[in-house]
Amino acid sequence: MAEPAFELYAFWRSSATFRVRVALNFKGLTAREILIDLDAGEQLSADFLAINPQGAIPALIEPGYPPLTQSVAILEFLDERFPSPPLFPSDPHGRARVRSLAALMASDTHPLIVPRVKKYLTASGGFDDAAWRAWQVNWFTRGFQAMEARLSKESATGVFCHGDTPTLADICLASVTAVARVFKVEVPDIPTVNRISARCAEIPAFAKADPMAQVGAPS
Amino acid sequence: MAEPAFELYAFWRSSATFRVRVALNFKGLTAREILIDLDAGEQLSADFLAINPQGAIPALIEPGYPPLTQSVAILEFLDERFPSPPLFPSDPHGRARVRSLAALMASDTHPLIVPRVKKYLTASGGFDDAAWRAWQVNWFTRGFQAMEARLSKESATGVFCHGDTPTLADICLASVTAVARVFKVEVPDIPTVNRISARCAEIPAFAKADPMAQVGAPS
Repeated sequence: MAEPAFELYAFWRSSATFRVRVALNFKGLTAREILIDLDAGEQLSADFLAINPQGAIPALIEPGYPPLTQSVAILEFLDERFPSPPLFPSDPHGRARVRSLAALMASDTHPLIVPRVKKYLTASGGFDDAAWRAWQVNWFTRGFQAMEARLSKESATGVFCHGDTPTLADICLASVTAVARVFKVEVPDIPTVNRISARCAEIPAFAKADPMAQVGAPS
Repeated sequence: MAEPAFELYAFWRSSATFRVRVALNFKGLTAREILIDLDAGEQLSADFLAINPQGAIPALIEPGYPPLTQSVAILEFLDERFPSPPLFPSDPHGRARVRSLAALMASDTHPLIVPRVKKYLTASGGFDDAAWRAWQVNWFTRGFQAMEARLSKESATGVFCHGDTPTLADICLASVTAVARVFKVEVPDIPTVNRISARCAEIPAFAKADPMAQVGAPS
């Protein structure tokens, strides 16, 4: 299939945008990035709300179709449209495990440390900088330690989260480790998480998507 | 395919368990439920951690296979294994929209109001009952109003979130409206969300899964 002229509404630090970047790289696809500065609140501009009424990035635009939103939904879409190389194993139980590990990161961990949560806790929840830091550290720690508990005990874990090739689970894990690194959060007792994250970082599709390598990142 | 003797680790109020119940009902499948009392912390018992090291429900057990965890991953699995009736439309862009709407509920809204977050905010975050209530109301409101903004503007919305048959998006929407009802949270200005939620509640697969109809619910 000819590659569409994708456009990606993105922000350098965004964990969810990272996932889409990795998947595009992994599939050999490209997208022109359009910067939405989350720190400046550009996700709530009228122009962007016309693209995603939720006011959240990433949004992937394929000409002629409605905007694609929500990172994991975008990755499932890319895998359906461009099946090779695959983001999932071929058996239903394996795919279920990959989606479950991905959700542990993308649903149970990442949504707790995004800018809109910080804004609520600091503006309305009485959190000072130290309380926000403790919150951030708590959820990164719980998320990574839950991943560690699963990855270290489940026999399907291999070089990567599931077997010996990268899947959606690795992309979601790497997306959260990348953001933890930006925020200088270090979680103890997660050797399997660290081993897999380090292995992912060696792969060009992941390395090129790193937050610190994007336009807008602090130098 | 013969129906496996599924077991479902469940809790009456759990929004994520609700999703699995609806999907099982929708597919004409049954599962023996095993109660994990979240209010009593049973999800952190050694017995349950042996099933899901994350300490989260639901977990669906198919004899002979590792436990299936994370509700949306379980629903994707059930749809792959038991394709009729489908939980998704047949086109990739439609499936992407359904998965995106589902994630708005299951990833961006529900994880913010679960017991582990309440526990952190009240035990370590200085939240009293009123502050927790305000937090709960804030995220239900933002989630439903974001759903409303999308559902009311996007042309693919029909009788249900996507067209005229229920999908994963409706199950995830209904799972959060069901919990909002338990907590007596009413969100203004969401006519499309309310219309679709009411329509779902008329369907036996949804009605039978309602939290208030489960063992353990307050009478």
